[in-house]
Amino acid sequence: MEYITGSRKMGVMEAEELKKHIGETLQIHGSVYKLRKMSGFAFVLLRMRRAIVQCVYSKEFSGFPLEELREESCIVAMAQVVEEERSRAGYELRLLEVQVLSAPEAELPIVINQKQLSASLEKQLDFRPITLRNEKQRAVFKIQEGICRGFRAFFEEEHFTEIHTPKLVSAGAEGGANVFYLEYFGKQAYLAQSPQFYKQMMTAVYEKVYEIGPVFRAEKHDTSRHLNEYTGVDFEMSYITGFEELMQTETRMLKAALRMLQEEYQEELALLGVKLPVMESIPAIRFREAKELVAGEYHRESRERDDFEPEEEALLCKWMQKHTGSEFVFVTHYPSRKRPFYAMESRENPAETLSFDLLFRGLEITTGGQRIHNYREQLEKMKNRGMEAEDFESFLMMHKYGMPPHGGLGLGLERFTSKLLGQENVRYASLFPRDINRLIP
Amino acid sequence: MEYITGSRKMGVMEAEELKKHIGETLQIHGSVYKLRKMSGFAFVLLRMRRAIVQCVYSKEFSGFPLEELREESCIVAMAQVVEEERSRAGYELRLLEVQVLSAPEAELPIVINQKQLSASLEKQLDFRPITLRNEKQRAVFKIQEGICRGFRAFFEEEHFTEIHTPKLVSAGAEGGANVFYLEYFGKQAYLAQSPQFYKQMMTAVYEKVYEIGPVFRAEKHDTSRHLNEYTGVDFEMSYITGFEELMQTETRMLKAALRMLQEEYQEELALLGVKLPVMESIPAIRFREAKELVAGEYHRESRERDDFEPEEEALLCKWMQKHTGSEFVFVTHYPSRKRPFYAMESRENPAETLSFDLLFRGLEITTGGQRIHNYREQLEKMKNRGMEAEDFESFLMMHKYGMPPHGGLGLGLERFTSKLLGQENVRYASLFPRDINRLIP
Repeated sequence: MEYITGSRKMGVMEAEELKKHIGETLQIHGSVYKLRKMSGFAFVLLRMRRAIVQCVYSKEFSGFPLEELREESCIVAMAQVVEEERSRAGYELRLLEVQVLSAPEAELPIVINQKQLSASLEKQLDFRPITLRNEKQRAVFKIQEGICRGFRAFFEEEHFTEIHTPKLVSAGAEGGANVFYLEYFGKQAYLAQSPQFYKQMMTAVYEKVYEIGPVFRAEKHDTSRHLNEYTGVDFEMSYITGFEELMQTETRMLKAALRMLQEEYQEELALLGVKLPVMESIPAIRFREAKELVAGEYHRESRERDDFEPEEEALLCKWMQKHTGSEFVFVTHYPSRKRPFYAMESRENPAETLSFDLLFRGLEITTGGQRIHNYREQLEKMKNRGMEAEDFESFLMMHKYGMPPHGGLGLGLERFTSKLLGQENVRYASLFPRDINRLIP
Repeated sequence: MEYITGSRKMGVMEAEELKKHIGETLQIHGSVYKLRKMSGFAFVLLRMRRAIVQCVYSKEFSGFPLEELREESCIVAMAQVVEEERSRAGYELRLLEVQVLSAPEAELPIVINQKQLSASLEKQLDFRPITLRNEKQRAVFKIQEGICRGFRAFFEEEHFTEIHTPKLVSAGAEGGANVFYLEYFGKQAYLAQSPQFYKQMMTAVYEKVYEIGPVFRAEKHDTSRHLNEYTGVDFEMSYITGFEELMQTETRMLKAALRMLQEEYQEELALLGVKLPVMESIPAIRFREAKELVAGEYHRESRERDDFEPEEEALLCKWMQKHTGSEFVFVTHYPSRKRPFYAMESRENPAETLSFDLLFRGLEITTGGQRIHNYREQLEKMKNRGMEAEDFESFLMMHKYGMPPHGGLGLGLERFTSKLLGQENVRYASLFPRDINRLIP
C-alpha cells in the first residue's frame, strides 16, 4: 500500500519568482501564447499561470528545432534566466530544452494572442473556452477573483458567517414573472432569485451572514446590463439600529475590495488600463430628491414616477460625479409600491421604505434595505398586497417565533466588475454568460 | 446630502471580548435563549453571535420586571461583567437595564433550548428556521464555515483562481438520468451536476482553479447519504505529472481544513464533542485490491464487480482504520466502464482509469482523477461509447486547440461535514436540505 502524505511537487518555477533567479537554469511550464520568428532567432511568449513571459529561441543555445513549438502547444522547458533591460520584466528566458506535452489539433478559428480580441462580443462568447486564454480576457476574471477575495476578507474581519442556501426552492416564495420553473419529483420547484428568505432566517442564528453564489432571473430583457444567471453577493445582519448601518457596512465592504485590488492585482489593472476609483465616502440622496434633481438639471420628464429609468440613473451619476467627485451614489427611501413585501416602511411616511440602491457609474449594482421583523406587521403588509400567509409559512416562522431587527443587501458581482473595468456590456464580466439567447458554452 | 463614510457602529460588546472587561458595565445584545427562574433571581441565557452567555437577573440590581423577558425575545441590555468562578466562562453578566426589541408571537412549537433537540429529523427539518437557533445546530454550520475557510486558505496559498461557472447548462453535456430539466426561453436547459467541463476549460487559462458552489443531482435515492442539491468543492489543475499529484493536493487541502478547525473552532468542536481525526498521511489502495481485501477479510461476495456497494466502502474503511490507523483511504484505478467519458485510462491497462475516490469513515466524499487532454483520444473514447461529438462542441473546443495535462476532483461539503461530526444522516449537515420528498423550508 502506498501512503499519500500531501507532499508538494517542487522544482517548477512560477513567473513571479523568476527574477530572483537570474543566471540560473530552471524548469518552467506553460502554453505557447505567441511565436515571433526573427532572423536567426525567435521570441516565444509563454502563457504561465499569471503572466506572459518572454522566452527566446536561438539555434545558438536551444537544443531542439523551432518547428517543435506551435502556438497553444503546452510545454515543459529548461530555461536560463538572463538579465535583459529591454524586457519589461527585466529578464528573459533562454529556452534550452523543451518537452511538448500537447499540441493543438487545428488552427485557432479566432485570433487570441493580439493585444485586443478583434471579434464581436457574440463571436468572443461563442469561442469563450479559448478566447478566455487571451491575456486581457483572463485578467478580467482574475480581478473578479480579487473583488471576491476582498469581500470575503471583509466578511471574515467583521465576523459574518458564510452560509450555503438552497437554489431549488418551493413555489410561493418571492414569485413573480421572472422565475425559472422546473419539475422536482412531481412537485413544482423554482430557481432561487436570491437567498433573501434564507439569509433573513439566518440572522436570527448568527447575527451576520453572507453568501456569494448563483442567482437566477428569468427576465426577458436583452440589454447590456442583464444576465439571466449571475453571482449574487448577499449579506444580511441583525441588531441594526437603522438602515444607514447597511450602507455604512457596504461602504466598508467595497473599500475592502478596492484595497485588495490595489495591493494584489496591479499587474492585471495595468494590463487593462484600469484606474481604481477613489472612494472615501459615498453621497446618499433620497429617491424623491434624486428624481427632482435629474428632472430639474437635465430637463427630463420621467414617465415612471416610482422608479428610475436607466437613463435617469446615468444622469444622476453624472451629476454626482461632477458635483461631489463620487462615482458611487446611494439612493434611499424608494417608494413602497416598488419594493418587495418584506421591505420595512418609514415610520414618518409609510409610502417610503427604509431601503436603498447603490448606483455606480450609471448602473444599479446593489439593492438593499431594512426588513420587517415584526410578525403582525409582516402579516398585515402581505394581506394588503393580497398575498396568502399560508403560502409563506416557513418564511413567517422566523417572525412568529422572535426576530431581531435586521436588513441586508445584494450586489451583482458581474455588474460591479463590469463597471469597474469600464466594459460596455455586463456579459464581458461573466465567464460563461447566460442570456435570453445564450445557453452555450 | 448625507455622506456615508463606512463608519462602524461602536460600543456593542461581543461575547469573545467580555472577559477582558470584568467590572465594567457594557452594552450587549442578543436573543433570550433560556430563562431559568430561581427563588429571588433568574438565570437568563443570552444567545449572542457565537456564544451563549449566562446573564443574571435579580431585583437587587435589575431595573425592570423579569416578565419583560421571554424566551426568543431579542434584547439590548446594559450589563455589568462580574467575575464568577462557577461559570464556565469565568464571568457572568448582571442585567441592569434592558430594551426589548422584539418578542415571539407564540409559544415555540418545538423545544430548541435543551442540550439536544429531541424531535425526529423530519420534525427538526420542518422547523429548520427556528431549530437552527439551537446551540448545537448552529455549531454544525459554524464548523462547516470553518471547513470552507480552511479550503479557501489552502487554495489561495497554492494560487488557485476562484471561478464562478454557470449552473444553467445546455442539454447534451454530462447527461444521464440524474438531471433536472427546465425550460429556458423555449430551449431545454438543465441544472449542472458539477462544474466539470468549465473547470477543465479554465485550467488552460489559469492552470489551477476552484469553485465552491451548488450542484444538482436528480437522484431518486432516499438514503442517509444522498442530497439532491449539495455544495460541491471542486478543484482542477493542469501540468500535473500524474494523478497521484491530485491526491497529494487533496491531502494538503484536508489538512488545511482540519488545521483551521483546530485553531479557530475549538468552542464548537467541544460543544459537539467532536475530536478531529489525526491525519498525517492517507493510505491508497487499488480498486481491485480493495475489492479482494474486503471479500477475503469479511467473506463477502459482491454482486457488483466494477463498483463498491456502500457496505463494502464501510468495511474497507473499518479494515483500514484497524490496520493503518487512518480514517481516510484513497481507492485508485477504478474500472473504466464505471467512470465518465473524460476519465483518462491507464496506459498499462485501459480497463482501468487514472482516477480515485476518497473514502472517509465509511463514505465516499470525493471523486477525482486525471482527464483526457488529447483531442483525438477524447474523440475516440466518445465514439466508443456511442456519443455524438457534435453534441459536445464547446467542450471539445479546449482539446482541439491545445490543452495541458490536467485533472481534479469534487468533494461533497455536506458529506465531509457530516462524517467529521459523526452524524448519522447527511441532512444534518445541510442548512436546508433538498431530498426526493423535501423542498421546504
